[in-house]
Amino acid sequence: MTHTVISSATKEVVIGFDRPFVMIGERINPTGRKALAEEMKNGDFSRVESDAVAQVAAGAHMLDVNAGIPLADEPALLARAIQLVQGVTDVPLSIDSSIIEALDAGLAVYKGKPLVNSVTGEEEVMERVLPLVAKYGAAVVAISNDETGISIDPDVRFQVAQRIVNRAADYGIPSHDIVVDPLVMPIGAMGTAGRQVFALLRRLVTELKVNTTCGASNVSFGLPARNHITGTFLAMAISNGMTSAIMNPLHPEVKTMVMAADVLAGNDQDCAAWIRAKRDPGAAIGSREGRAGGRRARLAE
Amino acid sequence: MTHTVISSATKEVVIGFDRPFVMIGERINPTGRKALAEEMKNGDFSRVESDAVAQVAAGAHMLDVNAGIPLADEPALLARAIQLVQGVTDVPLSIDSSIIEALDAGLAVYKGKPLVNSVTGEEEVMERVLPLVAKYGAAVVAISNDETGISIDPDVRFQVAQRIVNRAADYGIPSHDIVVDPLVMPIGAMGTAGRQVFALLRRLVTELKVNTTCGASNVSFGLPARNHITGTFLAMAISNGMTSAIMNPLHPEVKTMVMAADVLAGNDQDCAAWIRAKRDPGAAIGSREGRAGGRRARLAE
Repeated sequence: MTHTVISSATKEVVIGFDRPFVMIGERINPTGRKALAEEMKNGDFSRVESDAVAQVAAGAHMLDVNAGIPLADEPALLARAIQLVQGVTDVPLSIDSSIIEALDAGLAVYKGKPLVNSVTGEEEVMERVLPLVAKYGAAVVAISNDETGISIDPDVRFQVAQRIVNRAADYGIPSHDIVVDPLVMPIGAMGTAGRQVFALLRRLVTELKVNTTCGASNVSFGLPARNHITGTFLAMAISNGMTSAIMNPLHPEVKTMVMAADVLAGNDQDCAAWIRAKRDPGAAIGSREGRAGGRRARLAE
Repeated sequence: MTHTVISSATKEVVIGFDRPFVMIGERINPTGRKALAEEMKNGDFSRVESDAVAQVAAGAHMLDVNAGIPLADEPALLARAIQLVQGVTDVPLSIDSSIIEALDAGLAVYKGKPLVNSVTGEEEVMERVLPLVAKYGAAVVAISNDETGISIDPDVRFQVAQRIVNRAADYGIPSHDIVVDPLVMPIGAMGTAGRQVFALLRRLVTELKVNTTCGASNVSFGLPARNHITGTFLAMAISNGMTSAIMNPLHPEVKTMVMAADVLAGNDQDCAAWIRAKRDPGAAIGSREGRAGGRRARLAE
C-alpha cells in the first residue's frame, strides 16, 4: 500500500488508497485574488493567516501556500507566508511555486516534511526541482506534462508521469514520495476531460501505484453551479483511485461529496466521520425529553 | 456499443454507456408505504397516477411499477396500475414483481417494450421468468444472486450474471436486453459494499458488456443525510460504468449529482442539460438593468 507521509513540526498526514481523501486547501494563492496580492506585496499577511485558520476549521488536512505575485520578491514572500501559516496552524503544507528560488526559500524555513508543488516532465524543470526535493527530503507533486505541452492522450500523460518517477529515483526520491497530478481540464471546454482523467487515474493506481492529486476546481470552470460539478468530479475521481486534491474546503457541497465518497470507498471507518458531521440527534429522537434522554444515554455509555 | 431499448407506445429510451444515465422512478411501490398499499388494495389508484406524473416532471426517464401488497390480487393490481400509468405518462415502464403471474398480467396489458424487473440466477426463477421475457420481446433486470444467496465476492456475483446472460441466450434473449443489477448493500452495514460494486461494475462493462442498474437508495440505508450518500454513490457508480438506476428523482441532491456525473462522463453533449437546469442569468448579471439587457440579448440572438 503506497503511503505518502507529509508532516509539520507536530502533525503527520498520510496520503494513501486506504486512507480518507486528503483535502489540501487552495485559498492561499494570490493568483486571481487582487486584494490578497496587493496586501502580501505590502507585507500584510493578515488574510493569509485568517484563510489558513478558516480552511483548517473547515476540514482541510493540508494547506497549499503560493505567493506568485508579478514583480514581487516571491522567494521572500513565500518564506514569510510559510512561517506565518506554520505559526497559526499545525497542518502540513504544500509549497507552491514555479520559481526554483521561491521553492528553495520556502523549503529552507519549513518545519517538517512538506509537499513541493510542483515538478513537470520538462527536462529543465526536473533537473532543477528534483535535487531540491531530494536535498530537503520532501515529497513532490509531479504534473504530467512536458515540453510538448499537455497531451490529450491519457497514455502519453501516463508516460510523462512514469518518466518523472524514474528520474526522481535517480535522485533517490522513492515513488511513494511522488504525488502525480494527471491534469484536469475544464469539462465545459472538453467533454472527454473526465473520462480521460478517470482512465489515467486507473493506470496510475494499478501500474505506477502512486498517489495522485489535482487542482479540482479547474474541471468546472465556466459552468453554472460549479461546486456541484467539482464535488461530483472528486467523488468520481476517488472511485477511480485519486487520493488527494488541492481544493476549497469552504464550499460545503464539495466537502460533503468528498466525505460521502470516503464512506463509499470504505475509507471512513464505520462511517464515523460522516455520522459525526451529519447526525442531528434531536431530529432523530424528536422531543425535548427524547433529546435529554439521548444525552443521558450517551453520557452513560 | 451496448444499447438496451425500452419503449412505451410513443416513446423510446435507450440505456447505454454513451447515453445520459437513465433514471427509473422508484416511487410506485407499496412496500413500506402503508397508505398507498391500502389505497391500491381498495381500488384507489389516484396516488399511483400523481406519483407517476410527479416523477416524470422531476426528470424520470422511466418508471418502475410495483403492486406487491400482501393478501391482495397482485396480478390484477399490477395490470391496472400499468394501464393507468400508461394513461397519464408516456415514459416506458419497468414491470416489477417477484410473482410470475403478476409479471404475466402486466406484460399482457403493456403497450410497447417494457423492462421486466426481475430475474435472478436461481434455476427455478430463470425457468419461469425468461420464457415470459422472450414471449413478450421485453428486456429484463438480472439480479446477481442465486440459490446460495448474495455472495460478498464480486467475482461470484459476476459469474451469476454471466450464467443468467448465457441462459437468456438459450431463450433467444440477446445480452443487450439484459440489464444486470450487481446488488448494492447498505454501506453503513458493510464498509466494502461500495468497492465491491465498483469492481463488479467494471467487469460487467468490460467483459460482459452489459448495461446495469440498481436500487440506489439501499446503499444509504440507516445513515444520516442519506440522499447525499445515494447521489455520491451514483456518481461513483457512473464513473465505473453503471448506466441506469431505480431511484427517487424527487430528491434534488440525488438528481443534481446524476446530472453532474453525466457531464463528467461526457454524456451531456456540450453540458447542455446541465446549463439549462442550473443557469440563473439574473444572478450572473447582477442588476435589474443587466437582467433586462440579458433578456434582450437572448431575444436578439
